[in-house]
Amino acid sequence: MKAEQLSNLMVIFGGTGDLTHRKLIPALYNLLNEGILPDAFAVVSVGRRNKTSEEYREELKKSVQQYSRFSMEQEKWEVLAQKIHYYPLDFRQGEGYTSLDDYLKKMEKQYGTKGNRMYYLAVAPEYFEVIVDHLHAYEMTDSSEGWKRVVIEKPFGRDLQSARYLNKKITHAFTEQNTYRIDHYLGKEMLQNIMVIRFANAFFEPIWNNKFIDHIQISSSETLGVEERGGYYEKAGVLRDMIQNHMLQLLALTAMEPPVRLDTESIRDEKVKILKGLRKMSVEEIRSNVILGQYGSNGEKKGYRQENRISPTSDTETFMALKVQIENFRWGGVPFYIRTGKRLPKKSTEIIVQFKSIPEILYWKEFENLKPNLLVIRIQPMEGIFMQFNAKKPGTETQIIPVQMDFCQNCEIGSNSPEAYERLLYDVMKGDSTLFTRWDEVEYSWRFIDTIAKAWEREKPLFPNYDAGTWGPKEADELLRKDGRKWWIL
Amino acid sequence: MKAEQLSNLMVIFGGTGDLTHRKLIPALYNLLNEGILPDAFAVVSVGRRNKTSEEYREELKKSVQQYSRFSMEQEKWEVLAQKIHYYPLDFRQGEGYTSLDDYLKKMEKQYGTKGNRMYYLAVAPEYFEVIVDHLHAYEMTDSSEGWKRVVIEKPFGRDLQSARYLNKKITHAFTEQNTYRIDHYLGKEMLQNIMVIRFANAFFEPIWNNKFIDHIQISSSETLGVEERGGYYEKAGVLRDMIQNHMLQLLALTAMEPPVRLDTESIRDEKVKILKGLRKMSVEEIRSNVILGQYGSNGEKKGYRQENRISPTSDTETFMALKVQIENFRWGGVPFYIRTGKRLPKKSTEIIVQFKSIPEILYWKEFENLKPNLLVIRIQPMEGIFMQFNAKKPGTETQIIPVQMDFCQNCEIGSNSPEAYERLLYDVMKGDSTLFTRWDEVEYSWRFIDTIAKAWEREKPLFPNYDAGTWGPKEADELLRKDGRKWWIL
Repeated sequence: MKAEQLSNLMVIFGGTGDLTHRKLIPALYNLLNEGILPDAFAVVSVGRRNKTSEEYREELKKSVQQYSRFSMEQEKWEVLAQKIHYYPLDFRQGEGYTSLDDYLKKMEKQYGTKGNRMYYLAVAPEYFEVIVDHLHAYEMTDSSEGWKRVVIEKPFGRDLQSARYLNKKITHAFTEQNTYRIDHYLGKEMLQNIMVIRFANAFFEPIWNNKFIDHIQISSSETLGVEERGGYYEKAGVLRDMIQNHMLQLLALTAMEPPVRLDTESIRDEKVKILKGLRKMSVEEIRSNVILGQYGSNGEKKGYRQENRISPTSDTETFMALKVQIENFRWGGVPFYIRTGKRLPKKSTEIIVQFKSIPEILYWKEFENLKPNLLVIRIQPMEGIFMQFNAKKPGTETQIIPVQMDFCQNCEIGSNSPEAYERLLYDVMKGDSTLFTRWDEVEYSWRFIDTIAKAWEREKPLFPNYDAGTWGPKEADELLRKDGRKWWIL
Repeated sequence: MKAEQLSNLMVIFGGTGDLTHRKLIPALYNLLNEGILPDAFAVVSVGRRNKTSEEYREELKKSVQQYSRFSMEQEKWEVLAQKIHYYPLDFRQGEGYTSLDDYLKKMEKQYGTKGNRMYYLAVAPEYFEVIVDHLHAYEMTDSSEGWKRVVIEKPFGRDLQSARYLNKKITHAFTEQNTYRIDHYLGKEMLQNIMVIRFANAFFEPIWNNKFIDHIQISSSETLGVEERGGYYEKAGVLRDMIQNHMLQLLALTAMEPPVRLDTESIRDEKVKILKGLRKMSVEEIRSNVILGQYGSNGEKKGYRQENRISPTSDTETFMALKVQIENFRWGGVPFYIRTGKRLPKKSTEIIVQFKSIPEILYWKEFENLKPNLLVIRIQPMEGIFMQFNAKKPGTETQIIPVQMDFCQNCEIGSNSPEAYERLLYDVMKGDSTLFTRWDEVEYSWRFIDTIAKAWEREKPLFPNYDAGTWGPKEADELLRKDGRKWWIL
């Protein structure tokens, strides 16, 4: 890749926000540390508050010290800091955009960034539209001299209709190719590894289907509650915060057919086929296959309704478990169980593949309680893969026990996996949108999510229905128990 | 199992020999330590030298201290020692057997062993016949009152003809069911585990065939030279010392079809099918597929011809590498490469399964030097299983590297796998001959070995042809290189 293609001016809307402090600037520092941040690069952070670039840099320095995976070195920080500028602007108002554009042009000259711009919308979703509109109206999106790309954080709409509306607005201003809908889960190392593990090896693919697999569990649990994000969360709930994006992306990567080639569109084509292939459920089916929960106080921790900026009668769900089916030849008959929630006992995201047992023969017949084979892909906080299989217990009498074969990517001393945002920001600079979601992926996931939301909107379960620190409402366990299965906690 | 069935008098011929000191008595001590040595049990050790039982026990005590996997506790040793008696006899001469039998009967009464006897032939193979003949002639093999079992060490014959002759002698005296042809490799924990791994799991068996496997390497290397076993080794060579028994047994367990049931005869039926299914080779094929070697001095270590009790012009081979094929639907087209030798760089026995790659697609097409998938079963000294597969190297740019998933059975702190002889002696007492070789297994392996021995007998390579401390003659590497493969050293 030529240097001029990577060169760019990154324009962050929401420069004083949490995301910029905790993720974006530390990611830039780490890219610099790795030696891959382009030389011709600068950041203009746009925010409503008044402050100088000096003050702003001082604040960022503290964030980098706290959140960067490399410890901060003063010299390196100076290199980055002198590329960062603060520009105060109420981005809701159109009148300031002309002078902003003038300022950006000045910076482009100063840093030699060749007219390439990355507009990063690190703001609340209600501002996506107005910013994109203004960028378009003030002719700041024209890609004829240097690329103009827009990065949009989740949530992309709150249902199919609003997502379509937002997308229409964006496509006025940016082509699909220049639109980067970020799902930071896709930047995680082990998520990218799912495809490599499945398709760069000979022994997983032959058994990756309904002949050998009993079912798959995709689970992402948090120990935290809603924390300071109450305002956002009340509107989103776990369905829009986790399922519509992260969990369905995990599902798509786990279940997709091998792509024709490894290019962006071939991969997205296969992912979207999984989302299209999700079996539609009737309202009754949804009510028995989709379990909602909201945490209550366990004495020590507050319940959701007692948290900051949450209605004391809130009906927002903080937990969801669901059983879905994919209608294709590979997966017909294999249920996928998805579970995610807040205030659960353990922080962990993992994919658990349970293989079929053959109870009537040989060891399965002769030994009681033989455990099924599992293949587990750990996404976070542990990154790795492990297999549980049966082996003879050492000793003179025969006894068979489950044992584990383990590969842990981030367990080695000195290992330091890149943060998702490093990879993703770098990909935007390179123009590689493989790890971002294409419009049809968003569209089909909303189609699926909308039916669920509608089925439950009139009458939710009586909340709260699980105690903070437990694995959700008992109906979530029942969901698997009635199929003769159970959630694995490994 | 009832106690009276386990009770027995163990009669060791060769009581002053190496095997008794290093393996048999320490194994008995360990069984006692595990609490599974029957109470009604005693040992009568028969040897040609004159000594008292007291003197004999003192010698054994030192051996147990040195070779037992549990550290010796005086009290426990006393329990075992008072069960051990020495009986001086030239077992080549018939006249002493009557008084030996009288003595054994006296011991049987004293220890309440119910007439059950285990005759253990821990002597040089030339004495197998005479001992069995005498036991038969003096009516000491009659199983009507208590079982009479005979345990025979390798080598069982030195070719098909002599093995048949010996077997005929044995079957005069003992039924096939009471004949325990020992192959101590079969007592090793991980060897027993091969079947469990293959047949108690769902994800290995579907890919355990020529559709997915490129080839299999079975390798057993020693760093030691011939040591004090020159007299025996000169006659046996690696073909009879390792290939005919241990290596072919490893092959049979790795390649066998699933047995109908887990009983002894069903398992042996499948093993023998593999030995019968070995593709016959012409003399020319043998000369290109079977590589012989003999180690020479490397300056530091002696060459084979300079070792004790070895002819300075010896043509005995200390190394062998061969390529064999099994003619059935599972394995047609999959070569098995077998390699074993003395004075190699590393002590290790392992089975390496290399899976096919798919070079024309996806990651195999896009990335250079992608490594094939391996599944490795480690037999000794490490006991375990590991898989090598491809994963993304953490970092912002995509790079794929081989990584390992590992399960080590004897790596845990405090793990202490039983010695092969513990399991095997206990099995003889129980009457379980699963881990011993049936006559037809011996017969078919000699048929195969004989053709190899004959093809090479007229004109061997110029020995010595490899230096001590190297991986054998260069022809052994060439054997795989001409197939586009290489020996894995892991």
